[in-house]
Amino acid sequence: MTQITDSVAEALIIGASLIGISFGLLNALIILRIQVIGADDGVMALKDNKLAAKYQQMQKISDLISDGASTFLQQEYIYMSIFVVIFSAIISFTVEANLGEFWVVGPFILGALTSIISGYIGMKIAVKANVRTCKKAMDGLHDAFVVAFRGGMVLGFTLVGLALLVLILIIMGYKQFYLDNKTHNLKTMFECIAGYGLGGSTIALFGRVGGGIYTKAADVGSDLVGKVIQDLNEDSPMNPGVIADNVGDNVGDIAGMGSDLFGSFAEATCACLVISSTSNELVSNHALYYPLLISASGIIVCLLTSFISSNLMLIDEGYKVERTLKYQLIFSTLLMTPVLYYLSMTYLPSVFFFNAVEGGRVTNFSSFICVTLGLWSGLVIGYFTEYYTSNAYSPVQKLSQSCLTGAAPNIIGGLALGFHSTVIPVLAIAVSIFVSFTLANMYGISLAALGMLSTLAIALTIDGYGPISDNAGGIAEMSELEEARKRTDILDAAGNTTAAIGKGFAIGSACLVALALFGAFVTRSNMTNVNILRPLEFSGLIIGAMLPYSFSAMTMSAVGDAAQEMIHEIVRQFKEKRILEGIDSPDYERCIQISTTSSLRAMTKPGLLVILSPLAMGFLFGARGVCGLLAGAIVSGVQIAISFSNSGGAWDNAKKYIEAGNLIVDGVVHAKRTEAHKAAVIGDTVGDPLKDTSGPSINILIKLMAITSLVFSGAFERYGGIAMKYINSKTL
Amino acid sequence: MTQITDSVAEALIIGASLIGISFGLLNALIILRIQVIGADDGVMALKDNKLAAKYQQMQKISDLISDGASTFLQQEYIYMSIFVVIFSAIISFTVEANLGEFWVVGPFILGALTSIISGYIGMKIAVKANVRTCKKAMDGLHDAFVVAFRGGMVLGFTLVGLALLVLILIIMGYKQFYLDNKTHNLKTMFECIAGYGLGGSTIALFGRVGGGIYTKAADVGSDLVGKVIQDLNEDSPMNPGVIADNVGDNVGDIAGMGSDLFGSFAEATCACLVISSTSNELVSNHALYYPLLISASGIIVCLLTSFISSNLMLIDEGYKVERTLKYQLIFSTLLMTPVLYYLSMTYLPSVFFFNAVEGGRVTNFSSFICVTLGLWSGLVIGYFTEYYTSNAYSPVQKLSQSCLTGAAPNIIGGLALGFHSTVIPVLAIAVSIFVSFTLANMYGISLAALGMLSTLAIALTIDGYGPISDNAGGIAEMSELEEARKRTDILDAAGNTTAAIGKGFAIGSACLVALALFGAFVTRSNMTNVNILRPLEFSGLIIGAMLPYSFSAMTMSAVGDAAQEMIHEIVRQFKEKRILEGIDSPDYERCIQISTTSSLRAMTKPGLLVILSPLAMGFLFGARGVCGLLAGAIVSGVQIAISFSNSGGAWDNAKKYIEAGNLIVDGVVHAKRTEAHKAAVIGDTVGDPLKDTSGPSINILIKLMAITSLVFSGAFERYGGIAMKYINSKTL
Repeated sequence: MTQITDSVAEALIIGASLIGISFGLLNALIILRIQVIGADDGVMALKDNKLAAKYQQMQKISDLISDGASTFLQQEYIYMSIFVVIFSAIISFTVEANLGEFWVVGPFILGALTSIISGYIGMKIAVKANVRTCKKAMDGLHDAFVVAFRGGMVLGFTLVGLALLVLILIIMGYKQFYLDNKTHNLKTMFECIAGYGLGGSTIALFGRVGGGIYTKAADVGSDLVGKVIQDLNEDSPMNPGVIADNVGDNVGDIAGMGSDLFGSFAEATCACLVISSTSNELVSNHALYYPLLISASGIIVCLLTSFISSNLMLIDEGYKVERTLKYQLIFSTLLMTPVLYYLSMTYLPSVFFFNAVEGGRVTNFSSFICVTLGLWSGLVIGYFTEYYTSNAYSPVQKLSQSCLTGAAPNIIGGLALGFHSTVIPVLAIAVSIFVSFTLANMYGISLAALGMLSTLAIALTIDGYGPISDNAGGIAEMSELEEARKRTDILDAAGNTTAAIGKGFAIGSACLVALALFGAFVTRSNMTNVNILRPLEFSGLIIGAMLPYSFSAMTMSAVGDAAQEMIHEIVRQFKEKRILEGIDSPDYERCIQISTTSSLRAMTKPGLLVILSPLAMGFLFGARGVCGLLAGAIVSGVQIAISFSNSGGAWDNAKKYIEAGNLIVDGVVHAKRTEAHKAAVIGDTVGDPLKDTSGPSINILIKLMAITSLVFSGAFERYGGIAMKYINSKTL
Repeated sequence: MTQITDSVAEALIIGASLIGISFGLLNALIILRIQVIGADDGVMALKDNKLAAKYQQMQKISDLISDGASTFLQQEYIYMSIFVVIFSAIISFTVEANLGEFWVVGPFILGALTSIISGYIGMKIAVKANVRTCKKAMDGLHDAFVVAFRGGMVLGFTLVGLALLVLILIIMGYKQFYLDNKTHNLKTMFECIAGYGLGGSTIALFGRVGGGIYTKAADVGSDLVGKVIQDLNEDSPMNPGVIADNVGDNVGDIAGMGSDLFGSFAEATCACLVISSTSNELVSNHALYYPLLISASGIIVCLLTSFISSNLMLIDEGYKVERTLKYQLIFSTLLMTPVLYYLSMTYLPSVFFFNAVEGGRVTNFSSFICVTLGLWSGLVIGYFTEYYTSNAYSPVQKLSQSCLTGAAPNIIGGLALGFHSTVIPVLAIAVSIFVSFTLANMYGISLAALGMLSTLAIALTIDGYGPISDNAGGIAEMSELEEARKRTDILDAAGNTTAAIGKGFAIGSACLVALALFGAFVTRSNMTNVNILRPLEFSGLIIGAMLPYSFSAMTMSAVGDAAQEMIHEIVRQFKEKRILEGIDSPDYERCIQISTTSSLRAMTKPGLLVILSPLAMGFLFGARGVCGLLAGAIVSGVQIAISFSNSGGAWDNAKKYIEAGNLIVDGVVHAKRTEAHKAAVIGDTVGDPLKDTSGPSINILIKLMAITSLVFSGAFERYGGIAMKYINSKTL
């Protein structure tokens, strides 16, 4: 190994994260410099009065979406603040004395704040990028694509850069001020810093679960209102719920996805740091920054990759959109592999040791294998997600054909497709787990998670691209810019697939992160094994496997209830106002308000389930029961999360496939306003809450359950297992 | 304990099983004595020519269904025979030398044969009972109910009686002829006899998976054909698929359910016998017949219970149907409890011992607790299944209301309902496992399974009642007997709920049986614990949790493909024949043939998945991997099975609720031919394969995987873990 001093490593990490942030903000600037109504447009307006009016409308709708997003964010921040304060208090009570409360709560709050800020920037720019994508779509496909893609990059690079920067600054600060206390050591230092991951995760509860309910309450409510109010188009600007629907795309897919992956990133890194600090070789060789250097080099690799596609590839035809996005994943993975090899072989000592559960004997090459396996299984998941959800391949095409015999075959086919699509991703995850676990136990698992997340900036970019294109399409529709709408439809179809890919990444990494946290919980609880052939463990396992079902039922019902509330409000407005006659304008604000409050209220029950079930199990039956619960929730949750997001993505694209006029039987085109299309719309609506609320929320379920258990492991040891003690005192 | 000699116990068991068989056959006789077209009808026919013609039609359709059922059974028996021969050969190869091949293959073939014969009798009488239920429905609700109920009793009592009789005769025979060989002992004797359970399970693969695909291929195909052929009613006798649909009800719910529960019963009893034979106290105190005495007393209790409802309770109003069926469950459970107490306390020694994994120290009272917990958790599962699927309660009523806003909310709501309905049943199963496992390890688990199955005769009765009522309704519709149809609709609505209850029992007991077999596998593989915090076990766990998804995707697709084939055949017939003009009659036989062959072909893939996945895991990675696989499949499969059968049952009853005119909003009735009804029909069609094919097939997945692993445990030890050996020889 080449000796790199800690200061050099710190400089490299800070440098890379600053580059990431700057690049993100640069893209934000480029987007903002595009004028929605420019000087040219003024000249043109003199010639074409009608177009000028459409541009005015476009600007107006964009402002409404932007304001709506702010409304939601302001409301959410109040709830988040309360939650963070309460959670800080709880942490203070449960933290072990030798760590020091302040030292844990600090990183916790910083993690929460960083996640919030990243989401805020991502969303603020996304709502600016959508209208500009719409505008550019008037000129051509390529220009529009680039704007939407840049919007995604703002989220991707700012988030990863900020996450990394704040973390390294915390570490540097702690090295300065925490270690001067004699009772403190490196391990307790990193245990304190792990609060950063917890902070990120709690925000993700709001982002993913609350945001997921928000977006689909508005979407499903607006979709269904057409059934109640006659002659109202789904995307009509006369629909009071339509702005809430567009706001929702940003809330769920930008802020929600961002906070979810921020949480995974922060937790994987912190877990790896805690374990690393227990190896004398890593400490004495100054090789603790390995996990952060992975992420730092990931930023640079992603930057190069994104440069290629946003500048060097011309997108002049529809099929190239999806291909370009897919190439992003492949390029970044290919480029990352030698970088990881170089990094592992030069920075890590050739052999280093942990205690058995945490890693045992590990070599630099085996570390490389672990991290690379995570990276490549991310690609495998992405690739197969694309296969199952893109309308370029047979699964979605067959699904759209099943619409010819009605909605029921479409639903059955879509469910079967989602179930079937779990096979390869789960095998990929299982192989990653098997190999990295075999090579380096929990250290290996955390490396695999970091490997999968090393191309996070790109994953978030192509994920953020989706809702921006979707919104651009909505704005085009509402402004009656037909030409732009055709192009944004092409962008949006690819967006559905990339959204599914992003969700695949998210659940894959969530699974690895949760497993690493599970391992940490077992170690912290002083257990040497988790034998499921015991009553408590097996009962825990089967109950744990049930939790994702109960949780999904809650989130699905929450969307249904919130959507009903939305429908009532819309119906009320139509009764009291003369909207359809064009006299009164709809009250968008009220619908946004309803989506906001009902989503934040509806997330209480699933949120409590996540936090209380490990606590109830731990305090009543002790840590062994919690082990079963966690393992059951992880292995069962992964399946639901993957199948839901792929079923939903496939239904959405089967509908788009039919709308684009691709379903042709015996020379007859079955497009919009046919029975087949109606069947496809039903599938799409069913898929909405599955793919955007219930499925992705599972990530939060498994991660937050694991980290809650970890935080309370000490308390379980001291006060837990009350029921078990009672049972053991009795004999029959 | 009171000393009962083995001969007395044997006499009691034989007596009870003969009573069960006689009672079943007596009911068969009573049904057969009802004349479809009696002397009275001849007199009446002179007065009412039209009614006479309808009765002729009724008789004709009944004959068609009866012939169709025979066609299917004949075909299936060919496949089953081939399969049994191949499996016998495989067993011969894998059996350990000291047992003797002949001694294992014998019970295996007898188990398969007994299952086949029970299913045959049940189905033969069911297709006679349906037309007679229809006939009696002309007279009144009570008479019709009693016929359908008697039809169910034929299945229930004959099956349990035969299963018990053959088993006790095998045991008596083995005691006579097997134990004279000096190398043989009681334990190896019962290990040989356990082939009986395996025989039952392999038949269940055909009954449940093949039968499940058969019934829904015909059902979904016939339902959807209305979308292709105009002006064709779903239940129209002009539809060539309609007889196959009616045959299917008997194939799936009578033969399929029967074989599934026969398998559970046989395996639970055999597992308990094998474990019992390892306790010196049980052997020396002549207390080995405990599991068989549980079942024997169950027959008597069920007989008393059923006597009450078929003779003493008058069913003059619709709501009483479901209540009476529910009372059956409650009465039998209540009556059974003191019987079990008496049996356990008098027959078992007060304390007896096993080795630690199999049971440890067990008392007669703790045995009573185990078996009673199983019994009562069966009731809890049944009760909550009724709550979630009956249209007497709010979940289904709310679901039918969601139909007002379209098919999508109905689908989302139904999925959420199914997911939500897993909570209580899984908790009930978890408590049973926790307590019985704590009290008596694997012996306790097998007792809990036996307890749940002790009221099997009643569970099968109310389950068999469903398809008979359903068929009676179909016959009434096709014979245009409107008055009868109204009454059979009432009977059928209750039948959907009882079908869901039956499925709840089936999965609950399958879970316990699979766990007992899993425990046996672990013991046989000389493992002391199954530590999931190891790479192989955890990877196995997550892959195992994926298998029910992959398996369900296969069975769902199989139904879809077979239904498409059916649709093509029906369309072909309409093109080539003049059926709609009333000139040609449809070729029902051909549709039955298609359902038969396509279902038996389509079950190959899921069948292979079940058998090959533990084999692949075992031979490549060894027994530890198989442990993970089995545990994952059990805990994940239970959830899918419960949620699928409840979602499907709820959708079906939401449709029936609307059809009965119960959905009233602001004074407007939303019944047949409204948008709400259309939405409900879509839900019902989606639910069909979920509740009748994919969901119940999971039982087979988890049981057959477990028993396959158990059978091959020796082979895994000798030849298994090839890949692991290779991996272990390498180091990175």
